[in-house]
Amino acid sequence: MTTLQRDWAGLQDLDRELMDQARLRLDHLTKPLGSLGRLETLAQHLVGITRTLRPSLSRKVIFTLAADHGVTAEGVSAYPQAVTAQMVLNFLRGGAAINVLARQVGAEVVVVDMGVAADLPPHPGLLVRKTGRGTGNIARGPAMGLEEASSLIRAGIELAEAELAQGAQLIGTGDMGIGNTTPSSAITAAITGAEAALVTGRGTGITEAAHAHKVAVVQQALAVNRPDPADPLEVLAKVGGYEIAGLVGIMLGSARGHRPVVVDGFISGAAALIAVGLEPRLKDYLIASHLSQEPGHRVILEHLGLTPLLDLNLRLGEGTGAALAMPILEAACAVLTQMATFKEAGVAQRSSSPP
Amino acid sequence: MTTLQRDWAGLQDLDRELMDQARLRLDHLTKPLGSLGRLETLAQHLVGITRTLRPSLSRKVIFTLAADHGVTAEGVSAYPQAVTAQMVLNFLRGGAAINVLARQVGAEVVVVDMGVAADLPPHPGLLVRKTGRGTGNIARGPAMGLEEASSLIRAGIELAEAELAQGAQLIGTGDMGIGNTTPSSAITAAITGAEAALVTGRGTGITEAAHAHKVAVVQQALAVNRPDPADPLEVLAKVGGYEIAGLVGIMLGSARGHRPVVVDGFISGAAALIAVGLEPRLKDYLIASHLSQEPGHRVILEHLGLTPLLDLNLRLGEGTGAALAMPILEAACAVLTQMATFKEAGVAQRSSSPP
Repeated sequence: MTTLQRDWAGLQDLDRELMDQARLRLDHLTKPLGSLGRLETLAQHLVGITRTLRPSLSRKVIFTLAADHGVTAEGVSAYPQAVTAQMVLNFLRGGAAINVLARQVGAEVVVVDMGVAADLPPHPGLLVRKTGRGTGNIARGPAMGLEEASSLIRAGIELAEAELAQGAQLIGTGDMGIGNTTPSSAITAAITGAEAALVTGRGTGITEAAHAHKVAVVQQALAVNRPDPADPLEVLAKVGGYEIAGLVGIMLGSARGHRPVVVDGFISGAAALIAVGLEPRLKDYLIASHLSQEPGHRVILEHLGLTPLLDLNLRLGEGTGAALAMPILEAACAVLTQMATFKEAGVAQRSSSPP
Repeated sequence: MTTLQRDWAGLQDLDRELMDQARLRLDHLTKPLGSLGRLETLAQHLVGITRTLRPSLSRKVIFTLAADHGVTAEGVSAYPQAVTAQMVLNFLRGGAAINVLARQVGAEVVVVDMGVAADLPPHPGLLVRKTGRGTGNIARGPAMGLEEASSLIRAGIELAEAELAQGAQLIGTGDMGIGNTTPSSAITAAITGAEAALVTGRGTGITEAAHAHKVAVVQQALAVNRPDPADPLEVLAKVGGYEIAGLVGIMLGSARGHRPVVVDGFISGAAALIAVGLEPRLKDYLIASHLSQEPGHRVILEHLGLTPLLDLNLRLGEGTGAALAMPILEAACAVLTQMATFKEAGVAQRSSSPP
């Protein structure tokens, strides 16, 4: 086992004993049994991940990882590649959707250049972990080398660990990269075995003709690279992206620190496919924030066995879905830790033999 | 037209011109067109209701209206009637789910005794607007008189108006009343024409046999009272409840003040059926917070043409679903008012003829 493999191996199982104790407490709170539905199972889940009966998620971080994609040369996006760098500057000025939504829920946004095809001016709010300026064009060859993919995963792990060391209690994932639905579709097709046409969507909003072309590009990427579905690192290197590699690391690093990962939409979902392939126990640490409009996202969630918290027809990325879901996770913790029990409140329980 | 009828007639149409302006702004923000899905339509909707391009929803109130139901004598609930009063005391001490969830989203909870079958001790946090101590048993006769129903609606309107006068910007509805899914099922069957069995659920968690009995009780309530579906006030008086009447007024009062109403689950939904029956334009002011586990709730939402924001398998009431949905409404406003436009951010728009 190489050093790198050790980084993603050996995640702990959830703490089932504490989860049972949480269930017991939930059943004694002043509400009909199970009546808070998903909030209750979520509270149990968060107890199992964080290994405490009083989980707190108030310190929240969303990683928005940016990178460019050589496959934009194939005309797969409605926007020019330069928009990736322009949007990073927008993130740093606080004007993008993720800034607004993160502010709304009290989360910090950490912006990382994982491989933007431009030299961005230094900025105190911008971390740079790039090994290249845009990936190779996956329609013609691999996105990156295996060593490069490994090193970007490691960079992601270290980014997560650094935030956890500074007190982050909840980590959300996000992405920015013109063209990045194309590698995400290729990853999804490669790992799940679904047809390219089923998992390729309109991205930022391309025409019907452009969509047909995009499906062909995904098929070509798979035919040219022949990624081995049993080797997730190879899939990532051959048809993935730099920000996707970083997100794989963010997820693994957060889980190693016993913190839940709120997974954004389609691009984060593609990263989750790779990450769970590398370490199947990671799945237990993932919370699916929402169901994206991108058709491949449903395929990813079904493959991973995750049920999204929200379904608001989003397809923006950046971590916006993750931000919107965070208050639901906090609500679940608050129910568990702040509600009164029947005994404390002097409320009669249901009759031993209810009607 | 009586004075009372004037109270619920004459709601203004949404401001379609401002909604178009909001759409224009949304389309210039730094994100792919329409990529924030439901948040964008919600932002437009909130502009139309509040008649301003910069809606603010930071001052939030949830009305939790409590009352008892004579129909509990038929054994329709898993909990004894005394729990209604006990839960009101729990609300006043801050230990119930609605207290915890409202605190989490920064909303105030206003607790109102609309007809609890007990004399509750005076408390600075408890408003009392009761005309009776529990309704009549709807399986044997009407819940209340027509005048009583009217006066409770008026009380609800005045409660909403008082909060708006003090600066409330967003109002959520909630309920507490052991047995109150039974009148809600009866209202739903009466107004929508659906079979009692289709709109009657397990409430707080009754057995299968008790559920069959509950369906029979709902059928009996309809057979005994024969409410005229074309006369929503009559339906309310004959097979409704005191807190449901109050909620009808809360909705009408909030809408008259051009404020959105976040409708909780099944009991609030039954109130919405009555309220929209009285004033069809009210529908435009309602935001469905979530889809309840109670089977009748889906029928209500379809009848009203409302799409819920959340689907978390809740069936608690109290306003818990409304509280959980409020951050999504605030997020929609924040997107509209705080995001940068492409021009402001110096980000390239999509090509005039995108691929």
